[in-house]
Amino acid sequence: MRIVPRHPLALSIAAIGLVLAYAARAAAGGEGSLDMLPVLEALALILVLARLGGALFERFRLPAVLGELLAGIVLGNLGLVGFHGFDSLRSLPVVEAMAQLGVLFLLFQVGLESDVAKMAAVGGSATRVAVLGVVAPMLLGLGVSQWFLGQLHPLSHWFVGATLAATSVGITARVLGDLGKSASVEGRIILGAAVIDDVLGLVVLAVVSGLIAAADTGRAFDAMGLAVIIGKAVGFLLVAVVVGRWLSSVTFRFAARLPGEGLLLSFGVAFCFLTAFLAGKAGLAPIVGAFAAGLVLDDVHYQALRERDPQKRDLSHLLAPIGALLVPVFFVLMGMGVDLTVFAQPSVMGFAGALTLAAVLGKQVCSLGVWGPGVDRLAIGLGMIPRGEVGLIFASIGRTLTIGGVRVVDDMVYSAVVVMVAVTTLVTPPLLVWRMRQPRL
Amino acid sequence: MRIVPRHPLALSIAAIGLVLAYAARAAAGGEGSLDMLPVLEALALILVLARLGGALFERFRLPAVLGELLAGIVLGNLGLVGFHGFDSLRSLPVVEAMAQLGVLFLLFQVGLESDVAKMAAVGGSATRVAVLGVVAPMLLGLGVSQWFLGQLHPLSHWFVGATLAATSVGITARVLGDLGKSASVEGRIILGAAVIDDVLGLVVLAVVSGLIAAADTGRAFDAMGLAVIIGKAVGFLLVAVVVGRWLSSVTFRFAARLPGEGLLLSFGVAFCFLTAFLAGKAGLAPIVGAFAAGLVLDDVHYQALRERDPQKRDLSHLLAPIGALLVPVFFVLMGMGVDLTVFAQPSVMGFAGALTLAAVLGKQVCSLGVWGPGVDRLAIGLGMIPRGEVGLIFASIGRTLTIGGVRVVDDMVYSAVVVMVAVTTLVTPPLLVWRMRQPRL
Repeated sequence: MRIVPRHPLALSIAAIGLVLAYAARAAAGGEGSLDMLPVLEALALILVLARLGGALFERFRLPAVLGELLAGIVLGNLGLVGFHGFDSLRSLPVVEAMAQLGVLFLLFQVGLESDVAKMAAVGGSATRVAVLGVVAPMLLGLGVSQWFLGQLHPLSHWFVGATLAATSVGITARVLGDLGKSASVEGRIILGAAVIDDVLGLVVLAVVSGLIAAADTGRAFDAMGLAVIIGKAVGFLLVAVVVGRWLSSVTFRFAARLPGEGLLLSFGVAFCFLTAFLAGKAGLAPIVGAFAAGLVLDDVHYQALRERDPQKRDLSHLLAPIGALLVPVFFVLMGMGVDLTVFAQPSVMGFAGALTLAAVLGKQVCSLGVWGPGVDRLAIGLGMIPRGEVGLIFASIGRTLTIGGVRVVDDMVYSAVVVMVAVTTLVTPPLLVWRMRQPRL
Repeated sequence: MRIVPRHPLALSIAAIGLVLAYAARAAAGGEGSLDMLPVLEALALILVLARLGGALFERFRLPAVLGELLAGIVLGNLGLVGFHGFDSLRSLPVVEAMAQLGVLFLLFQVGLESDVAKMAAVGGSATRVAVLGVVAPMLLGLGVSQWFLGQLHPLSHWFVGATLAATSVGITARVLGDLGKSASVEGRIILGAAVIDDVLGLVVLAVVSGLIAAADTGRAFDAMGLAVIIGKAVGFLLVAVVVGRWLSSVTFRFAARLPGEGLLLSFGVAFCFLTAFLAGKAGLAPIVGAFAAGLVLDDVHYQALRERDPQKRDLSHLLAPIGALLVPVFFVLMGMGVDLTVFAQPSVMGFAGALTLAAVLGKQVCSLGVWGPGVDRLAIGLGMIPRGEVGLIFASIGRTLTIGGVRVVDDMVYSAVVVMVAVTTLVTPPLLVWRMRQPRL
């Protein structure tokens, strides 16, 4: 960031001229009021605990991500041993936002390492895996819900089934990255299917929520509105890939003509955030947009900018320290969301166990969607297991819906969904590591 | 982040055992409710505009930081041309927090490039510069306030004077960094004096606020409480330097024994955040803590960790992309706080002009505190000019104080302080660049 000013006095005058137009915003008084101290305390604590947890697990050759989750579980349950000094950490939107940005950076990086051409090559398999991976767990979840909770409204069972639909690609992406397998056939099918899964899952959510809203109010279900939701969701990735490729090429060609430093990183991250924002506007999870941004952003687009960097760093390289800082925050927060006291309710655990089994078995069915030889179907089935934050978001939406005054997702169902999310998230890394490291036949 | 699991089935069992203790937190339902979309939109926009503004100014050989401020002014005043689409950007705490973290990273990096031994070598000059730089502007500000606003309570004049005390090191640090002059004698005196200034300024603020509170309520002023405030503020840096050096040495020796990656960055940033947090708890601005953290953190402490990095990156190198992303957010937000409509009030501009003159001249007096030959006194006086966010924070505190039901800092004074902050911030980079680039005699 060196600057070489040529006309210092002229620029002084220019600057003074500029500031003659400068004046006070009375409302600015509130700007100093953001209290950063709890945020700094929480981030310092979370960063250190994440690394300690990760180091503990790495010492025993376990994935660091499990250690970060464990650190979060410990941090979130210190109240059980009478320590409440960290309870306030839970309710810090800034820290929560850091975690969300961490997932975006993670998916952006996964997308950068992926490739549209290679993705299209597994597109057929990924689509079939995704469709089976949504239908099978939903039907199993529906059955489990009917068996355990016969008294609920039929649409509630469908909602429980819907929470099993979406694969959470975060954990699997991290494990595949740790193993250096993100670009393998299995890795690409899993990541591609997870993206399609997300789309399908959100369509299912939209449909079931719409039916529930109609059942609750007696209004006719709006088929037109539904078509719009489906169209937006399905169309987003296609548009993102076509328009995004063009836009990123144009943007970086423009940026390469600008003077200054840090252009590659700023424009790359802005492109990621913009695509994530548009995904959100289209009714999808923002992480789908971040992944799509990485997918369409190609080295060739920013080759000129990269050449200007003294160390010739590419975008992945520049993003690495940011991800290293933010991603563990997400996994610690995931762990903090766990309340060990729900253990005391055996009925919850029974339903949760059955729901988890449905979630795991349902995703094994989806590997039948892979046609052709030489692909490890078990690895794909295992990689599709984790549900993560998308399942939680579904469940939390269900808690806000009612049919005839009864909540669609009550506390017990919600607890069971959280257990299902936790178990599927935690069993996947070791199972996937075990499978991916087996000698190929 | 490669992992090499040795006992995959054993670890599956361990993981399953772990999750048997895993269950739902009913309160987690609120976690999905943070709306990231406005944050993503704002950040994408701010990142791109900051780079465009920076590029515009760099094209004319002006410091990029002025372009970032200009981008913020434009973004913040689009309402004047009838466009209100971005008005919601103002009130996003997450973006505001990003900006605050950006300043912390900036000061942390400045501290890392500084050195306690070299700092102590200029300690005498820095202290004298700081004391003069607080006393002279305060007295001048007091005079201006009495001249223009004779009707106010005498303590209000003291408060106006106090808003002129603290130097804002952010802008000067950025310019010195741009010029590669952070480690020059002048650079070290300015940065050292700015730190001491901050301490003195906050002591003055504490004293004046205390006197005002006493005058307002008729309570006796608590000399004991005042002594505690002063003790905490003055003692912090001494303690930070002594204890911090020991703590960072111990911490990084411990961290070097942990397995895993990303330890240097996570522990370094956590150390910075912790020190900033402690500074805040001691009643100082968190940036003072971040600077102190960088000051005491020495390469030798983390040599072992650095050796483990495949590219042997040091902490500055790892922090660079994070700073490149966050620092411009701060300067764009500073620009957005400017309301061009206050122009319409000539009385505000007269008082603001006089106050600004007092601020600039007051800091020129402080260069008399530099004894000995070979030091550019004018460069030091110019480098001490900017007031920045500390002055704004002072003014916003003044708005919350009253004497006999009258606000100590009314809207006019507040507007004038904002103008003073803006002008001193904007004139410093060109003046400093001009002076530092002159051939030394």
